[in-house]
Amino acid sequence: MDPQEDPEIEARFLSDWSGLSVGRPREVHRPRSTEEVAALVRRCHEEGLCITVQGGMTGVAGGAVPAQGDVVINLERMNAIEEIDALEGVMQVQAGATLQQVQEAAEAAGWMFAVDLGARGSCQVGGNAATNAGGIRVIRYGTMRDSVLGVEAVLANGQVVSSLTRLVKNSTGLEPRFLFIGTEGTLGIITRLTLRLHPPMGQAAVAWVAASRFEALPVLLRQLKKKLGSGLCAFEFMSGQYVRTACELTGATVPVQTEGAWHVLIEAAGAAGQCLDEPLQEALMHALEGGDIDDCAMAASQAHRESFWRIREAIPEVLTHLKPPATLDIGLPWARTAEYVQKVAAELQARLPQAQHLFLGHLGDNNLHLISGPLDEAGVHAVDEIAYGALRGCGGTVSAEHGVGRLKKDYLAVSRTPEEIALMRTLKQALDPAGILNPGRIID
Amino acid sequence: MDPQEDPEIEARFLSDWSGLSVGRPREVHRPRSTEEVAALVRRCHEEGLCITVQGGMTGVAGGAVPAQGDVVINLERMNAIEEIDALEGVMQVQAGATLQQVQEAAEAAGWMFAVDLGARGSCQVGGNAATNAGGIRVIRYGTMRDSVLGVEAVLANGQVVSSLTRLVKNSTGLEPRFLFIGTEGTLGIITRLTLRLHPPMGQAAVAWVAASRFEALPVLLRQLKKKLGSGLCAFEFMSGQYVRTACELTGATVPVQTEGAWHVLIEAAGAAGQCLDEPLQEALMHALEGGDIDDCAMAASQAHRESFWRIREAIPEVLTHLKPPATLDIGLPWARTAEYVQKVAAELQARLPQAQHLFLGHLGDNNLHLISGPLDEAGVHAVDEIAYGALRGCGGTVSAEHGVGRLKKDYLAVSRTPEEIALMRTLKQALDPAGILNPGRIID
Repeated sequence: MDPQEDPEIEARFLSDWSGLSVGRPREVHRPRSTEEVAALVRRCHEEGLCITVQGGMTGVAGGAVPAQGDVVINLERMNAIEEIDALEGVMQVQAGATLQQVQEAAEAAGWMFAVDLGARGSCQVGGNAATNAGGIRVIRYGTMRDSVLGVEAVLANGQVVSSLTRLVKNSTGLEPRFLFIGTEGTLGIITRLTLRLHPPMGQAAVAWVAASRFEALPVLLRQLKKKLGSGLCAFEFMSGQYVRTACELTGATVPVQTEGAWHVLIEAAGAAGQCLDEPLQEALMHALEGGDIDDCAMAASQAHRESFWRIREAIPEVLTHLKPPATLDIGLPWARTAEYVQKVAAELQARLPQAQHLFLGHLGDNNLHLISGPLDEAGVHAVDEIAYGALRGCGGTVSAEHGVGRLKKDYLAVSRTPEEIALMRTLKQALDPAGILNPGRIID
Repeated sequence: MDPQEDPEIEARFLSDWSGLSVGRPREVHRPRSTEEVAALVRRCHEEGLCITVQGGMTGVAGGAVPAQGDVVINLERMNAIEEIDALEGVMQVQAGATLQQVQEAAEAAGWMFAVDLGARGSCQVGGNAATNAGGIRVIRYGTMRDSVLGVEAVLANGQVVSSLTRLVKNSTGLEPRFLFIGTEGTLGIITRLTLRLHPPMGQAAVAWVAASRFEALPVLLRQLKKKLGSGLCAFEFMSGQYVRTACELTGATVPVQTEGAWHVLIEAAGAAGQCLDEPLQEALMHALEGGDIDDCAMAASQAHRESFWRIREAIPEVLTHLKPPATLDIGLPWARTAEYVQKVAAELQARLPQAQHLFLGHLGDNNLHLISGPLDEAGVHAVDEIAYGALRGCGGTVSAEHGVGRLKKDYLAVSRTPEEIALMRTLKQALDPAGILNPGRIID
């Protein structure tokens, strides 16, 4: 029975991975076409009803969590791969297709969709675009902004804007897609997308590095960028404490003997058939000899590579172990990161000594994750205050990839100037004057 | 004497490389700071004066050409390189810095600014951003949209929006830079930018290819993308007629014996110290054996490489030779390009047999240039009608990199849906209700 007609609206429409729950929607709709979405929005526009847009419900900022009395528009039935141009490497899809579906369809056509993240099986490309998702290969391929060529979106008045361009280059005024990518459904509902595909990557070279000082990491990263160019795919740093916890929980072994304060998982890959093991190893040997790093190991087999990544990807186990946790996705310039981590770690340890505070992140994308737990509600709030407070004046962001949603609204001014926020309000007012599209997200 | 006080406003402020001249401005200002720009705009806002924003005056769409009675704000004095973060590869500059200044400052800091184009010595990065300039390396590094991390802009009411972020990843709502990049000064005046730098490229491998059928080119390009990945930097195709004309004018020799209907200049480069000669040669041998291409040659020395590029870069000589010319920068999907070229070439030949019609372009960026000439005004109009007319329904664009400016406004609907244009108008109305910023550009 369709939830639309069902008095018992299923629990899965009420919350996302943040666990936040706000209220009970009056209706849940799962349209199959853009026209159905437009008709729903027109009705809400006329009747003054608020809309919550839902994708795969894997967000952690509460963006897809409905308020009491909302009309939910869930896109899970709009999941068609509509067209693939296998010559040029361009795909057109409905917004509710999962990331994994898109990746598999690209692969079947001899191409690769470059954005990848842990929630791939559930998250939807429309949601990925609305939050400008990043993931594990941003250093090489960028975020969703770099992989979306065009969008079709339904505006707050129910009008459909078709901007399904598939061109790499277009200089004919405003690109509508940038109004909808990253604005979390507050300016329009993305219903279809044209996506840019990349040639498949060759076999990856994977290494593990230990260093005693955080300051060594940006220096190493710069060296690797210069040595490997766009061959560098991942530069994932982890605190020693994260690595120990992850290894304990998964039974994995740290790939190096040295007990480093910091560890880095490095991946490099060229085109198909190309091998970057040698230049990667050379660069690491150089760093070792120069005293920048303390230890390193190259993965010698596919099993090795997977065991290295297993540690980095133990985040779900770590989150469960530290439940209930706080999980942050700060961004800041390389040069500010070491000082920031030191300051925040000390303050967290002093204020919340009973919890673990684990740092990790994608340094190449300026992205620093912090996982703290177990924490009660006051503890989660204290982590936010400490971590976002220390970010002021750093040129950083309170969200590098999760989005602002409902949960980070109060901290938006940490990463945006008053004039930027005023500009956001001007656009919201111009495109959704009644404020019916995802109200309560990003700005009030 | 400052033109501001000078009754004789210099000719260089009246027109750009398009040669278009519309009227005489009432004032020309060359401010030195954002505050001065803001004060000027506030005055124009209060007095209802129209503003023309000027960069290096190298545009070919008339975007910087003032109308009678305009207040010109020329940014040439705002040319400071303000800051370089040599660790991370980020630069902050004023908008009036020339592209070459930016490239040289990046190089001096051990990095590279990736956008490059023929007008580098005169064009300014602010203008490059306002028109979303592309150039010769888009296939690898993208357009200005991909190299600008943040902007500061002055709105139509004189308010300064500072969004000088330097983060690769930021998911905290609308990115202000995308309102100003590519909108040609109609929504705000870009005054400062943060730019992303890349590691320097290694020695390039350069090849020349001849093919009898255009259809072979996208197939070859796909093969090269798969073989070389992001190592592929340029895939510049030229019609046989363009190559003959360019060689006659420059005294250059075609690098291959075969008189192909189509020629391609291919460049591949990896990181510093990496050489891609071998994989490029392998891929071309494969294409030759498969019958996709008719002939190819690899450049064996730096002199060779330069002589190959000399032919591609003979456009200024060709334009002078065909003076007065029509010069178009269409974009369209690979799969439609062969048919489009055939159709348009036949129609041009039939309607304007006295002129030469030369095709060339950056296929990897969907970009097709057409140079026709010599032509009178009616002839230029006929070329526009034929070339843009044939573009309808192709999913293409009337401007891949030059911008719409004053000259392509009438054809905007060829590449934008009515809803996209309505959205542009909504934003213009929201941000510049009196229409004082660069009126008469992109949309009326």
